[in-house]
Amino acid sequence: MREHITSRKNPLLQQVRKLLTSRKEREATGLFVADGTKLLQEAIRWWPGLHTVILSQDVDAEIPQNVRTVTVPRDVMESISPMQSPQGALFLCRLPEKKSFVPKAGMLLLDGIQDPGNLGTILRTADALQIPVALLEGCADPYNHKVIRASMGAVFRMDVVQTTWAEACQACTQAGIPVGVTALNATAKDLREAPLKTMAVVIGSEGQGVRQEILDSAKQALIIPMNPNCESLNAAIAAAIVMWQMKE
Amino acid sequence: MREHITSRKNPLLQQVRKLLTSRKEREATGLFVADGTKLLQEAIRWWPGLHTVILSQDVDAEIPQNVRTVTVPRDVMESISPMQSPQGALFLCRLPEKKSFVPKAGMLLLDGIQDPGNLGTILRTADALQIPVALLEGCADPYNHKVIRASMGAVFRMDVVQTTWAEACQACTQAGIPVGVTALNATAKDLREAPLKTMAVVIGSEGQGVRQEILDSAKQALIIPMNPNCESLNAAIAAAIVMWQMKE
Repeated sequence: MREHITSRKNPLLQQVRKLLTSRKEREATGLFVADGTKLLQEAIRWWPGLHTVILSQDVDAEIPQNVRTVTVPRDVMESISPMQSPQGALFLCRLPEKKSFVPKAGMLLLDGIQDPGNLGTILRTADALQIPVALLEGCADPYNHKVIRASMGAVFRMDVVQTTWAEACQACTQAGIPVGVTALNATAKDLREAPLKTMAVVIGSEGQGVRQEILDSAKQALIIPMNPNCESLNAAIAAAIVMWQMKE
Repeated sequence: MREHITSRKNPLLQQVRKLLTSRKEREATGLFVADGTKLLQEAIRWWPGLHTVILSQDVDAEIPQNVRTVTVPRDVMESISPMQSPQGALFLCRLPEKKSFVPKAGMLLLDGIQDPGNLGTILRTADALQIPVALLEGCADPYNHKVIRASMGAVFRMDVVQTTWAEACQACTQAGIPVGVTALNATAKDLREAPLKTMAVVIGSEGQGVRQEILDSAKQALIIPMNPNCESLNAAIAAAIVMWQMKE
């Protein structure tokens, strides 16, 4: 039996609004929100912690028996959805348990990827190319709804480990995995000449690049050779080229 | 001597608003608009057809003598700029003359890339990796301000040829350049096994893929091997992998 909610002030809907905008709220409650019928299908298929589904009255979807399901009028859905044209399915999930960082050869470390679209696209690509990823400091929250959207649900299928540079660096060193960083300096090595399969590679943000601290301590600076008139590639594109090269 | 405009109804500012939103207006007047101080520097450096620069009073920039330069109060800049936080420089450029399509080995053909962010990112990557690009039917206007922004000014540095599939297909055939298409079907060939350097490769949109007409007539279907749980890559990511593979 599905509940029906009509009041925009209903506590569940108020919670949804908070979870959409506040990482603190997500961490305090252990919940996050995603929006979209396709993403809901992905979550049902892959995510063990589906918590509550809110459907617009005009949308139908098969929801597992044990999941709280609420229907709302279309205008109420529009009042809580972050999308301009809501598809009519919005849902709450439990955050995963914190996973510890395991160093791997042929993995990506993301430093300061703040843009949710870029982070989501990188996670989507990593899932497609089956490259393990860990997030260092300064990245967007992978359970931000914009990241989930850009990831096309890859977030539901993969382990997204969050760690620190200090921890990742130490663990890679102990495991004998050299760390490379993408950098735009003259002494950087063409990434096609580096054994990427055996390395962990740090990707930084477009604006700032990789933090100086990481540049100083990493074993190998790597460059994607490009037209000297260009300053950089989009961070998600640079990450994709590194990942593809890891598969070669 | 710089003009100063304070009325939001000034004809120049009204024209800017039209040029920002209407491709028809751009084609009728032969002008387009871009926004941002960094993009303005790129246009000054690379684009022969810089037409008019509009600066917010609180922003200074060196503008070539022969270019009409207008200053406006900050609030007027905010009323015409498409950006949430305008940098304070917005400018009109002349559209380039229509260039004819020249088939090349190792080029990209874009089919129906409607999303301005994806198209701009693909152009930025093509400029960085020095891969020629032509736009087939259904792509966003490369002189849409969102495309220019996502291209980080690459649009000002490169020849963006617009053509049709019929013309591109015929010209490639005559030049002996085989056309490949990215596709997700079982008979498609792993793109690492195809001689991409010698080919022209068609990239389609994420939603629709490459048009059936093109799939039917192209010589070779190509696939980027990926995790079977994923349906596709972002179009700009797929294009980047193809371009990178062309450089290999």
